[in-house]
Formats: sequence, structure tokens, C-alpha cells
Amino acid sequence: MSEDLNKVQLIAARYGEKDRPENIIWNAQIEGLLSHRSVRNFSQQALPEHWFETLVAAAQSASTSSNLQQWSMVAVTDPALKAQVKKLSAGDKGLANGYIEGAPAILLWVADLSRNHDMTVSDGLTPGVHDYLDSFVMATVDAALASQNATVAAESIGLGTVYIGATRNKAKELAELIQLPAHSYVVCGLVVGWPAADSDAAIRPRLPQSVVAHHNLYSACDLDAHVRSYEEAFHAFREGLGMKDKTWKQVVQGAATSLAYMDGRQNLRATLEERGFGFK
Amino acid sequence: MSEDLNKVQLIAARYGEKDRPENIIWNAQIEGLLSHRSVRNFSQQALPEHWFETLVAAAQSASTSSNLQQWSMVAVTDPALKAQVKKLSAGDKGLANGYIEGAPAILLWVADLSRNHDMTVSDGLTPGVHDYLDSFVMATVDAALASQNATVAAESIGLGTVYIGATRNKAKELAELIQLPAHSYVVCGLVVGWPAADSDAAIRPRLPQSVVAHHNLYSACDLDAHVRSYEEAFHAFREGLGMKDKTWKQVVQGAATSLAYMDGRQNLRATLEERGFGFK
Repeated sequence: MSEDLNKVQLIAARYGEKDRPENIIWNAQIEGLLSHRSVRNFSQQALPEHWFETLVAAAQSASTSSNLQQWSMVAVTDPALKAQVKKLSAGDKGLANGYIEGAPAILLWVADLSRNHDMTVSDGLTPGVHDYLDSFVMATVDAALASQNATVAAESIGLGTVYIGATRNKAKELAELIQLPAHSYVVCGLVVGWPAADSDAAIRPRLPQSVVAHHNLYSACDLDAHVRSYEEAFHAFREGLGMKDKTWKQVVQGAATSLAYMDGRQNLRATLEERGFGFK
Repeated sequence: MSEDLNKVQLIAARYGEKDRPENIIWNAQIEGLLSHRSVRNFSQQALPEHWFETLVAAAQSASTSSNLQQWSMVAVTDPALKAQVKKLSAGDKGLANGYIEGAPAILLWVADLSRNHDMTVSDGLTPGVHDYLDSFVMATVDAALASQNATVAAESIGLGTVYIGATRNKAKELAELIQLPAHSYVVCGLVVGWPAADSDAAIRPRLPQSVVAHHNLYSACDLDAHVRSYEEAFHAFREGLGMKDKTWKQVVQGAATSLAYMDGRQNLRATLEERGFGFK
């Protein structure tokens, strides 16, 4: 496929028929980023040799707040352990997430104050800064930036990925399962594997740029009209995958109102306090 | 420079002389990721045409939790407004951050529950899920993933970037300055511009992979020895830039113990509660 054709198609897939950004600077890296789709159906093929150190090097190359490096990653590849991770991430509702078991690895991205805590306490000092919400944000963002670089690296070699936020459903049990130290928690999981030949992974359309991106001042103009426009792209995406018809607004309202949707994540604060995080 | 030579040099810069991962899968994307360095000295050259929609498209191509798209971005390019952002991010200690003014843009990455909140309330529903810490984490991670994709895209076209966590120092005032709605806050800033010809931006070495990355179970083995080894690479990096000698351990302990280092970020929780976030 010619570069131009691929560019047009990728942008159409990301933004639908309307509201497309007209001019995007293009190169192989940007094409890679815009090609992202979450994969939920993996082949049995093993991961390529040296995948682990490659993804870790990419992750460590992301910025980290003040170079404090307050994140870790645990790659779960052992089948029995992976089945446990899946069970804990499926929650009470028994959500599918079968792809956690079907894929060769799930990477658990950890916000991790434990090292710096220990290095401080061991010299008789008190890491009082860790008692503040800001430290929690710092470590959480560190872990997220690292995970996204690993995602980009994985996709660049043809691997498929999908993020799993449901790893927070049973945050306490998951932390215990993988023996996380105090002052750390799993922010999210990232399933990694080769996409199955019959994977129907598709690029998911997003809101028009003008809804999420602003010049100088935040401008909440005409959200209703933009969302109506987005619903068309959203509908076409779901229809193309044979998914049950549902508007984006319904998804948004369900996620905002349903404690069943939280599926255990209501307990996150209590779990994290038990694990030594402060929220001052 | 040959690909192999560049690879060897980038890995050496990232991990120092010891503790280098021996085998990393290599391609242009991974080379780009491993080339990352924070730039703090920018030329006066304007950003390339269409930089904005390019970075936004990259950011929107990152995963977002349940496709809820709970982030926004405000690109501050107006000189007077940028000077204000700089002032608010320099904090009481008057830290430099001069590069916020010197660069053509700072992108403010916003964790944003406001759209979905409004779309729920306007139908008479109660977005009770937003009162939980998990919603705060979701939106914060969404913003971080988006920002990292924008960083990768910016660097792929030769731009330099540096993250600014100090945008949380005066979180309340910054939110008001850029007219953020309730239920949103600036997670971090990202300065973007062309690196100055005399920029001394350098790849910062990171901890050995075995410290941050684990197989199946978290293993906190021999942190002391690994940190001692890392101190050599850290020392060489600072010396190369003519920075005051300081061990990484001193950096870690300072950041963990000094409220002066927080520089206003102690107030983040109170500010966010005022702005409508819940932490149940």
C-alpha cells in the first residue's frame, strides 16, 4: 500500500468520515503510533527472543520524574501464575479477559516507591514526602509513561498489546500474588503476544481533536454537537465488529454511574493505604 | 554512523559501562525510543506547520481506559500566558524552568473527568464512580499515556521535549489560569521546541534492568549492590555535563524527605478536592 493511501486510511479509521485532521506530519514512527489497535486474540506463537530486555530498555528510556525511577514491571509468563492474574482481573462479574491466559505474557506496571523508601529509611531518614498524594501521582505517571514506551516498542516489532485496567479490581490480592513490597501497586497490566491470524483488532475512532485539544485556554464549546458527530464513527466501528449497538454516551454514563462496572476497584484507596501509600 | 555503532552507543549511554542488556531487538522505532533525552535549551525557530494536529493524533492513538477518553491537552503558545505558566511552575523557590519561556510551546496534559461528568449529570444521572480514587487514577493514566505518545511523535520529527512535573506546584492557580473546568487538573507539562544548536541534552543513565524488571514475581534482590553500580554511571553523566557532584542516593533521599522539594505540591489533594475530584 502506498504511504499516502495508508495515511488517509489510518486517519479515517481514527476519526471517522467527519472531523478528520487534514494535515498530519508523517513518518514511520507516526504511522506506527496511528496504527495502534488493542489486540484481544493472540496466536500460540512464542514471543521473540530478547523481547523482555527490549521492552524494558524502551520503558526505561521514557522520562521519569526527577530521575527517581519510581516504577517497576513484573512480566508474568508462568501459565499457572498467569491464570491467577486472569482470575483476579476478571473480578466478581467473571468478565472475559480470556486473552490474559491466551497470550504469552502480561506485563504488570507497578508504581513503586518501595526502593526509594527503603534507601531513605535505611539511613535513618523519614520519607515524609511519600505521605502526600503528589508522590502517588508521580509514581503512577512514571509507570504509565514506561508502559506506553514498551507498547510502542512491542508494536514496532509486530506484537499486539492490550491494556488491562481490571488488574486494579483485586489490587490487594494481585499485589500479594506477585509479592510486591509495601509502597507499590499495580497501576495496569499490558497483555503482549502475536496477534492471531483471525484477530479482528480494529482501530477505534476517537473524539474530534477540537474536543480534547485546546489552544492556550480550555474551551468546552459545543460538546453535544461534537459527541453527536462522534457517535456516527463509534456506531460504524461497533457495527463493523458485529458488536451490540450502544452509543458512546451510554458507555460513558454506564461507566460513571455503575458500581458493578467498578468490580472491586471501589476498594483501591483502602488497599493502597494498607500498602503504605499516603494521600495527604 | 552505522546502525550497529549507534545501537551500542545508545545502550551504553542508557546503562553505563556495566549492566548493559546484551541483546536488544533493533529497528528505527526502538532506536528513536532509546535516543530519548530531555531537552532544556531551545532555539528560537518556530514549530513546524501542523505540529499541533500531528501530536494530538498521536496522543489520541494511545489506549484510553474503556475508551472513556478522560484526558485533554492545552497547548500554551501565547508568550504572556506562557510566562504565567512558567511563573506558576517555578514555585516559591523560583526554580529556573526558564526553558518554559524559551520554548515555543508547553503542552499541559489534563486528567479530565469533566466531559463525562457533564454528559451524565445532564441526563439527571449521578456519576458516583467519579468519587472514587480509581477514577482519578484512570484519568491520570489516560493523560500520561497520551502525553508519552505525543513525546514519541515530537521526537520522531526532530523536536526536543522535557516533562515538567512542577506544573502541579500551584495546581489551583494553573487550572484557573487556563480556565479548566471542574473535575479536571493538569497532570504534567511537556515543553516542546527545536533543540538549540548548543543544547547539551544527554541521555541519562538508568538503573540496571534487573532492579526494575522482574519475571513472574517481584524480587528485591541486592538493591545496595545494584545502586552502587548505578552510581558510577550516574556520576559519569553528571560529570560530563559539568553538574555539581551528587550521588543518586542523595537525590532520592532529598526528594523523599524535603518538603521544600515539593514546592507547593503538598496542597495537591486539597486543590483537587476543591476541583471536584473524589478520593473514596
